[in-house]
Amino acid sequence: MSEGGLREILERIAAPDREVERRARRHIDTLTKPVGSLGFLEEMAVLYCGMTGTDKPVLGRKRIYTFAADHGVVDEGVTGYSREVTRQMVFNMLAGGAGINVLSRHVGAEALIVDIGVNYDFPESPDLIGRKVRHGTANIALGPAMSESEAMRALEVGIELARQAREDRVTLLGTGEMGIGNTTPSAALFAALLPCDVEEVAGRGTGIGDTMLRHKIDVIKRAIQVNKSRLTDPVGALAALGGLEIAGIAGLCIGGAANRIPVVVDGFISTAGAFVACRICEKVREYLFFSHRSQEQGHATALEEMKARPILDLSMRLGEGTGAALAMGILEGAVKIYNHMATFETAGVSGKSAE
Amino acid sequence: MSEGGLREILERIAAPDREVERRARRHIDTLTKPVGSLGFLEEMAVLYCGMTGTDKPVLGRKRIYTFAADHGVVDEGVTGYSREVTRQMVFNMLAGGAGINVLSRHVGAEALIVDIGVNYDFPESPDLIGRKVRHGTANIALGPAMSESEAMRALEVGIELARQAREDRVTLLGTGEMGIGNTTPSAALFAALLPCDVEEVAGRGTGIGDTMLRHKIDVIKRAIQVNKSRLTDPVGALAALGGLEIAGIAGLCIGGAANRIPVVVDGFISTAGAFVACRICEKVREYLFFSHRSQEQGHATALEEMKARPILDLSMRLGEGTGAALAMGILEGAVKIYNHMATFETAGVSGKSAE
Repeated sequence: MSEGGLREILERIAAPDREVERRARRHIDTLTKPVGSLGFLEEMAVLYCGMTGTDKPVLGRKRIYTFAADHGVVDEGVTGYSREVTRQMVFNMLAGGAGINVLSRHVGAEALIVDIGVNYDFPESPDLIGRKVRHGTANIALGPAMSESEAMRALEVGIELARQAREDRVTLLGTGEMGIGNTTPSAALFAALLPCDVEEVAGRGTGIGDTMLRHKIDVIKRAIQVNKSRLTDPVGALAALGGLEIAGIAGLCIGGAANRIPVVVDGFISTAGAFVACRICEKVREYLFFSHRSQEQGHATALEEMKARPILDLSMRLGEGTGAALAMGILEGAVKIYNHMATFETAGVSGKSAE
Repeated sequence: MSEGGLREILERIAAPDREVERRARRHIDTLTKPVGSLGFLEEMAVLYCGMTGTDKPVLGRKRIYTFAADHGVVDEGVTGYSREVTRQMVFNMLAGGAGINVLSRHVGAEALIVDIGVNYDFPESPDLIGRKVRHGTANIALGPAMSESEAMRALEVGIELARQAREDRVTLLGTGEMGIGNTTPSAALFAALLPCDVEEVAGRGTGIGDTMLRHKIDVIKRAIQVNKSRLTDPVGALAALGGLEIAGIAGLCIGGAANRIPVVVDGFISTAGAFVACRICEKVREYLFFSHRSQEQGHATALEEMKARPILDLSMRLGEGTGAALAMGILEGAVKIYNHMATFETAGVSGKSAE
């Protein structure tokens, strides 16, 4: 994707429709319940209407894209799992046995796996979307993860998949990822771009102990140091410190906004992608729902920075899109409330008296 | 129900099966995800196994009982809605237009409405379970809400419905209620039994303003004062300060525990019923899930007292069972994770290395 091509996409992003939001709010206040008594559910329904530009919302087809990629920084020993687990988990997902498969089936969402940068050549499969930009990133502790043009190509993958979703009449998108080592680049991006102390956003990932965590923090500091000159703009930072799946997720957020398809952002790593997308174009923020507050250290900080109220708070830290799947179920409930509850008038229920 | 009959039921309540819980925990740790990475979902699945006494859990049929009743204390002007709204909302529920209908359909749960004490004689309807104990309570600001034998009968209604659920092979129960004015008796029960200051647990209910809230607090204090001699045991307090739906919910919690059917407790009023049930028999606590933290002032205090971690926190305060419905969806996802995720061994995924 050229810079001009990206600029063109970004220019297409309009603000959510405020007049529709007002009409949606008025409709909700006619439903047979005390005003405001469904709290955040009501808010979600109003936002969904504004994003999709109609006060007759349809929440039908739901799709989660789980972007898989490898990370050169695994060489530094920042995780307890070996790099092969990325491809093994992709096979597990293709066989339907991973957490994301179970929870996406539970909520009736499609889970599509995207190879955007796994260090392995998968056989052709109808269930695997092959969009490999490169065979994993380089080690960010030694230099940039990828070139800026590769980062742009990975962004384009996500943007293109959102366009495809639009064509397939998908009404709600979710993000997910699989990539051994990927809390490290995510934390590096937050530390560099928020900016904040590395200690605040570097966490235990899949469950590392104190010694490995201290080492991980050092590695991230080195990565930021060695890539310092490249961190002056969000795409530069993404290329220097990021991951291919993180870039794909950023692209999906941008593409969702450009196509007015709301995007449910999964956990810590997905939030890193969403965050980069919002730094590239702040209008993207208004098309995002944040699914849950991850147990990963630093996610709370990131959500706060993005003024995001997470839908769930279940101490999850698995990724893959599992939080997005569960949150989609809640969001769908909110839209059903909007569409299917009776009004005071039609149900013949007396309203509240003035005090 | 006689005291002896109640005692017999209570004696049937066994602790959840700890050995099954251990086996369930071990099974979860073989699934293809970092240990503990699904957080509270894992915990819920383990608890569900222990409650139902099997490490091969089945979460099939789900049922919410929404107990409807009227409250004499409405005469004191503690709510902005008129008493007729209780029966109007029952009709709305029977027609499928209330929040509980929409959300129970969304998660695939049955929503059954129980007239346990509405001040209105409904025509026969296959969808309405007629178990009226009396036509609403008396005004608690002037004396007891009901007699102890009426409270026992209302408890029995809930216990009996849990038994019916067992017969119908229901695997998960939810509580719900409809009763204009019922945050007042709920707050009175918490204040009397926790005990705590009335101010800490009296809230805005359906949305009253400051003046009415101050008045409501006064009314609750009067109710506790006038009923003082009756508050020495939980059934006495329930009869003196409670509501028929609150007693029905308490009975359902007891009956769920006796039949080893886990019960998902809705919001503030349902928690009052659950709380009374646990005071009657503390073993009941181990069969309860708490669906959400209500926005109603005092619910957080009550949940803390019961050492309950709510599944959701969406600023809801509608009642009816709406929170229970949404939380059932999450809980079902947790059990599906347990049942359907692949293990490291079957999926051929490498585990975590020692650090």
